[in-house]
Amino acid sequence: MSARLLDPAAVAASFRAELRAEVSARPEPVTLLGLLPAGHPPSETYAAYTRTGCEDVGIRFELRTVTPDDAENVVRRAGEDRGVHGILVYYPVGARDADRWLRELVDPRKDVEGLHSFWARCLYENRRFLDDGHRKKAILPCTPLAIVKLLEAAGAGGARSPRPLQGVKACVFNRSEIVGLPLAAMLANDGAEVVSFDLDGERLFEPDEDGHRSHPVGVSRAEALARADVVVTGVPSRDFPLVQGSEIKEGAICLSFSTLRNFADDVVERASVLVPRVGPMTVTMALRNTLRLHDQQRAGR
Amino acid sequence: MSARLLDPAAVAASFRAELRAEVSARPEPVTLLGLLPAGHPPSETYAAYTRTGCEDVGIRFELRTVTPDDAENVVRRAGEDRGVHGILVYYPVGARDADRWLRELVDPRKDVEGLHSFWARCLYENRRFLDDGHRKKAILPCTPLAIVKLLEAAGAGGARSPRPLQGVKACVFNRSEIVGLPLAAMLANDGAEVVSFDLDGERLFEPDEDGHRSHPVGVSRAEALARADVVVTGVPSRDFPLVQGSEIKEGAICLSFSTLRNFADDVVERASVLVPRVGPMTVTMALRNTLRLHDQQRAGR
Repeated sequence: MSARLLDPAAVAASFRAELRAEVSARPEPVTLLGLLPAGHPPSETYAAYTRTGCEDVGIRFELRTVTPDDAENVVRRAGEDRGVHGILVYYPVGARDADRWLRELVDPRKDVEGLHSFWARCLYENRRFLDDGHRKKAILPCTPLAIVKLLEAAGAGGARSPRPLQGVKACVFNRSEIVGLPLAAMLANDGAEVVSFDLDGERLFEPDEDGHRSHPVGVSRAEALARADVVVTGVPSRDFPLVQGSEIKEGAICLSFSTLRNFADDVVERASVLVPRVGPMTVTMALRNTLRLHDQQRAGR
Repeated sequence: MSARLLDPAAVAASFRAELRAEVSARPEPVTLLGLLPAGHPPSETYAAYTRTGCEDVGIRFELRTVTPDDAENVVRRAGEDRGVHGILVYYPVGARDADRWLRELVDPRKDVEGLHSFWARCLYENRRFLDDGHRKKAILPCTPLAIVKLLEAAGAGGARSPRPLQGVKACVFNRSEIVGLPLAAMLANDGAEVVSFDLDGERLFEPDEDGHRSHPVGVSRAEALARADVVVTGVPSRDFPLVQGSEIKEGAICLSFSTLRNFADDVVERASVLVPRVGPMTVTMALRNTLRLHDQQRAGR
């Protein structure tokens, strides 16, 4: 058996076609404002991809340079500016602590990345809509959302809504506040049983009546990998022992969002699908979130 | 047996003496900014009590009138103003939806009420400090915090930290996002087993490894009241059947934060302590939070 390689750019292309149609049906231009600190090449690349994506679907993209000193006030002013529908900050801007606060100062109604605590609460409480009429969709963070969509495209789950991942067992190596933690919560909200690995130890995320619950769990990497239908890695360290083909379940879906290699070459011999990167889908989910926010803003009038 | 009546003003006085000493030891004046919409007498009363409290402990109080239209921008500007250490918005300002967003626009580093989602996350995750060094205390919402302090003063619990309410059974009638819900979570974080009643049904909040968990539960009012060591009510409806003396456990602590009567007169015959209101402690906790925020701001420099 040899794994199918799933290219996120191909999945992104079909989402972008939908977004292009949506944009063209709107009565006014939609504007996304990017805030970019100077001198951080990876962020510049991300911003360049955002611009290309915006041009592709028809969203207006404005890019402004910020410094650690003026970022807070630029973010507040963008919140007031009625001509801006979405705000995307290319972190890191300043020190870790300062960036945490900056995330909270972005008006959540324009927060394309879905990183504001307001959206995090919606996710952890599994509130998928803001209103009883189910017109205003809650915003989910771009990278975890991109991963969930890629896993679906790779064939994970397939149960009927509202729990499409019912019965799926997953393993996630990374529990950062930005990606691994919300991802584990989202997978469990969708019905999966998720073992989350991080330097702090293992936690189990499992579905419950309202969404999910999580607690520390004693399970080894070997046990968790041997039964996982889905393996997601995002470990930014060369010390991480690569996930070997012999460790995974036959037919598992393997996805990496790490900038480093996390899977050994032989995983393709046992996996059914390998998704080696996420980037193009993250940008596409940022564009999708921009339109969701624009929808909310229009519905709010 | 006849219940002792606990006056929140007396408990507040001892907290204020502590706060007064703390304020006098600071090198700079501490300023609390109140934002008051016109034409809402209960808020005007609350603001007047805040002013008296500030004068009592030595905090500078500034009061500014806001309209539903300018409130967002006034809040953003106050976030930028380095001369303002705490912000207190006297809700309601506008429509329910608009007020929800307004709460998220208050800079969490100045949010005296602890209603921003950032603080809500800390509470639900039971993170009591912002930093590993335990110098920056997380902010808890004023009214639930006032209630917890009053219950302690009334003799609830007494186990050693970190779970002072270990073994305590509580009943809370009200599950609003502002008071009843965070209160149930705080009591469970402290070790209590809490049955929360609301129009949506009953939920059980119970301590777990990291803090608490909650889930729907099938328990009747009669069962829950019969075993509760602590009964808290905040039901703003005349249709609520008053809690009767015959319903509660002998020696229970009863506290109401409702503006309406929620307890029948005969509860004093079985309760050990009755706390008939919370107001003065809420104001005092707002003053205390102002100093906590000022501490964080100083530690952050």
